[in-house]
Order: sequence, then structure tokens, then C-alpha cells
Amino acid sequence: MTEAPAVRFERIALIGIGLIGSSLARVVRRDGIAPHIAVCARTHATLDTARALGIADSTTTDPRACVDGADLVVICSPLGTYGEVARAMAPGLREGAIVTDVGSAKECAITDIGPRLPEGVHFVPGHPIAGTENSGPEAGFAELFQGRYCILTPPTGTDPTAIARVEALWRQAGMMVERMDARHHDRVLAITSHLPHLIAYTIVGTATDLADEARSEVIKFSAGGFRDFTRIAASDPVMWRDVFLNNRDAVLEMLARFTEDLTALQRAIRWGEGEVLQDHFTRTREIRRGIVEAKQA
Amino acid sequence: MTEAPAVRFERIALIGIGLIGSSLARVVRRDGIAPHIAVCARTHATLDTARALGIADSTTTDPRACVDGADLVVICSPLGTYGEVARAMAPGLREGAIVTDVGSAKECAITDIGPRLPEGVHFVPGHPIAGTENSGPEAGFAELFQGRYCILTPPTGTDPTAIARVEALWRQAGMMVERMDARHHDRVLAITSHLPHLIAYTIVGTATDLADEARSEVIKFSAGGFRDFTRIAASDPVMWRDVFLNNRDAVLEMLARFTEDLTALQRAIRWGEGEVLQDHFTRTREIRRGIVEAKQA
Repeated sequence: MTEAPAVRFERIALIGIGLIGSSLARVVRRDGIAPHIAVCARTHATLDTARALGIADSTTTDPRACVDGADLVVICSPLGTYGEVARAMAPGLREGAIVTDVGSAKECAITDIGPRLPEGVHFVPGHPIAGTENSGPEAGFAELFQGRYCILTPPTGTDPTAIARVEALWRQAGMMVERMDARHHDRVLAITSHLPHLIAYTIVGTATDLADEARSEVIKFSAGGFRDFTRIAASDPVMWRDVFLNNRDAVLEMLARFTEDLTALQRAIRWGEGEVLQDHFTRTREIRRGIVEAKQA
Repeated sequence: MTEAPAVRFERIALIGIGLIGSSLARVVRRDGIAPHIAVCARTHATLDTARALGIADSTTTDPRACVDGADLVVICSPLGTYGEVARAMAPGLREGAIVTDVGSAKECAITDIGPRLPEGVHFVPGHPIAGTENSGPEAGFAELFQGRYCILTPPTGTDPTAIARVEALWRQAGMMVERMDARHHDRVLAITSHLPHLIAYTIVGTATDLADEARSEVIKFSAGGFRDFTRIAASDPVMWRDVFLNNRDAVLEMLARFTEDLTALQRAIRWGEGEVLQDHFTRTREIRRGIVEAKQA
């Protein structure tokens, strides 16, 4: 720690300590953002790991006990747990506490958490767009967030100081922070993240179902493009199940657009329409250039 | 060059000098595999670049002149050019010359090249499975092939010495070489390479078609999975057009399987069948483990 952090808390409660939660805990430790990290997880095994890694000062399986005395609560568990987590922790939240989350869909976060929090507690929905295909507390590292974007989707009327403090937290972690309407977030992420994962999971499954002999060859010869999909398709199954169930409408809409486009290319292949294919493949290069220029490659 | 290469040629003719051709030329130079590299390309601009890069001893736009006196000819141009290249170079081929190629589909290579070569010339179809999203002679590098697989698909009756010499060439480049039936190759590659590219091209196109505002956001927030697809979808448009046109049947079959599987997952999302999703997502992790173990990650 070379200089004081831009934001400090007295006690940070992390509900869930997977890839994102444990990476954030490492940032908090590295930069001295809070003197106490309280961690809640479903199993004692996970809590033991968190302790052994030195990223938990206190541990519990009870969300209410975890948030006791915390001025910042970060929900890092799968989207499907949000309603239950909010209900369980609500009675333990102190006046003025800030609650945020890291979930990949935001309308559902607002619906499932917001109404369950007591008066005087500030909810700032957030989504740090960072990750790897690995999961669990051991998979985390403090540099995970560096140079990536974090989107906050606070509903109108959210306390500006609370928003600013959550924003400062993610900036301290190295992120660029933007604000956005929750519904818009869910549509943008449906195409940039949720649909790519669904497709990767699908094609890897399709390959898995081939005859046994072909399967070993699929592994051997994966350098031709397939291996990038397998990396994505190795992501946490429960987290992703919940993303699809909780961002259903936007995912289904983007999926419908994708399927139309795929059908058009399929038809071009069947009928040998080389120009249609070449035009399409040329156009997609531009988006790549944009990503390289935006330093997100 | 620390030791003598395992294989030597007198004069190597490269028809096409893109990513693969120019990478191979760099290997030939690095390891002293041949004292002369003759390069053929369609444009003088490309040939000038190859000369400036120091990877061409002689250059021409005429395939026949390029192969004159060569004991090894490597066709590194898009699959759609094969018939014309074979026809044009055939009269210039010397007795005993070996012709090989690097194309991503092999049944069409055998059909388009084989019958056009004169008696006494050996054709060994090959496919080094290596690449990046960059194209052109500047994009090549000698290490491109290191640790990857190369598949040879020589028809029954192909001269064993010719096969052994092509195999030795790719081993010298750092590849593991396997032999396979051409038809089987085309099916395996359809699922491990061609379909992933088609899907990546599709989804990047779908995103490009979104409204302008969303498009800039797609670029910004691509770290959530999308950017891996954009990398694949930045691959050479002409090369890939030709792959789809020339491995049509296998691609359409794998695409049909993929679409069925995607429809099943789409249905599970629509009806909220969490278990179906989670089971599928758990299964696909295994394939990733296999790839990591096979050191192809």
C-alpha cells in the first residue's frame, strides 16, 4: 500500500466469497479499505478456505450475523439467492448501511433486494464486468478488476453519497465506473455476455455428444477456435443458470436475433452464396478493431 | 540455428504468403531447411512485402514460374483458388516434386488438386492447425506452429517417402503430426473450428446490427465474453468464405446438431427449467479439463 485509499469503510460484509467476492476482499486487504472483512458463505468448507487465504476476519453461514455492524454489504452470491439473502440479512442491517451487489443482471437485483431492505439502508446495484472461467475463493486475485468497466444501476432517488462511495470502491479496484438504467444494462449484457456464454455452453455440449472417438479428437484439435469456447463454457454453472433465469426476456430477444442471422448464413452456405458470406465476415472485423482501440481486447 | 534440420529441400515454392505461408517461410529461414524460397502471390504489393520481410528469394505472380525447379510446393492460398492454382502450376512441376497444402478442408483439396497434377508428382494434403486472427505476410511468425497439431490426409497409395518428408517439415516447425482420413478430418474440424468461426461471425454481426448507441457499449463492455468471439470473427474473410463453401456438408450437419441443442436450452430458459441448464453447464466443464490436460489450452 503506497498511498491512502480513496474510500474507507469500517466493516465490509461479503455475502458469498467466490471469484468476485474473494478478488474484492484481496483489494480491500491490499489497499487497507476496511479493517474488518466479514464473510458469509453457505458451507463451512468455503469459510475455512477464506480464513486460510487470509481474506476473512470473521466468518458465518448466517447473512444476518454477517452484516451486523457493517457499513458496506456486498452481495456476491448467485442471482437466485438474492431474495433469500435480502430477507435473511434485513433485520441485521444498521441505519445508513450501503448494500451493493455484483450480479450480471440488474432489473432482477432491484426487484429481489430493494423492497426487502429496511428504511435508511441504501441499495446501489452494481456489476463489475470482470471474470475468469475459474470459480471459488482460491480463484480470486486483486488485479481481476484492473482496467475493466463497472456499471452501477441505482434507481432514481438513490442517495448520491452512497452511490459515490460504491463508485469510489470500484475505482480503487482499478475499474472505470459508469451509470446506466437497469433495463438497458440487461439488454447490453445479454448480447455481450449472456448470449456468448449460452452459445459457448451449447457448442461444447454438442461436441461432447459426438461419438467417443471424435471426442478425444475434439480435445486434441481444439486450437482451431473451439478452445476459446471451452474456456467460456467452463464458467460457474450455478451462477450462469441464475443469469439466464433472471435475465430471461433480454436473453431470449437477443437469441432470436442471433438465430435469424445464423439461419441467413446457413442458407448462404447451402446455396453457395460466397458474396453474402464474405460481406458478413468483412463487416465483423470492424467491431474487433473498436474493441482493440478501446483497450478491452 | 543450433543443429541441422531434420529435413532439407533444394527449393521450396510457396503459393500464397499470408499468415501460414509467411510463418512457414520464417521456419524455413530460421532452421535452414532450404536455400531458396520462391513465393507466388496475386499482387505485386504482397510480393514486395514478402521481399522486404526477407522471406522470399524470388517472387512471381505466376504459379507455374514459382514451382519451376522446386522439390517442395506448399499451397497456402484460400481453398477457392486450389483448382486454378493446380491447373496453372501443373506444367511447371518437376518429376518427383512433392505438393502439399495447408487448407482447413481436405476432401475438396484432394478433389481440386489431385487430378490436375502430372504423373510422378506426389500430393500430400495437410492441415497445420494453428492461426491467429491476423492475416497477411506481416502477421506471420516462426513460433506459430509450436506445440500444435498438424493433420495429413494422404489418399491410399501416396508415396510413403513424400508423406514422411512433409511430416518431417511440420515436425521441424514444432508440430505434432497425425494422419487421418480426409472425410473424417472434415467432420472433426467442422465442429472444432468451422462451426465456432461461423457462430462467432454471426453473433458479432448480430451485435453490429444493434442501434448505434448500444454498439459503442457493446465494445466497451465486451470483457464479459463477447471479446473472445470478436477475436475469432476478425479472421480472414476470404479464407473463411472458402472454408464454408468447401466443407459445406460437414458444416451444415454440425450446425443442425448445434441448433437443436440451442433450441433445447432456449426452451429451458423460457420455461425456467433451472436443472436442465445447470446439468448442461456442469457437463461442459469436463471437456475444458481435457483440453487443459492435453496442453492445448
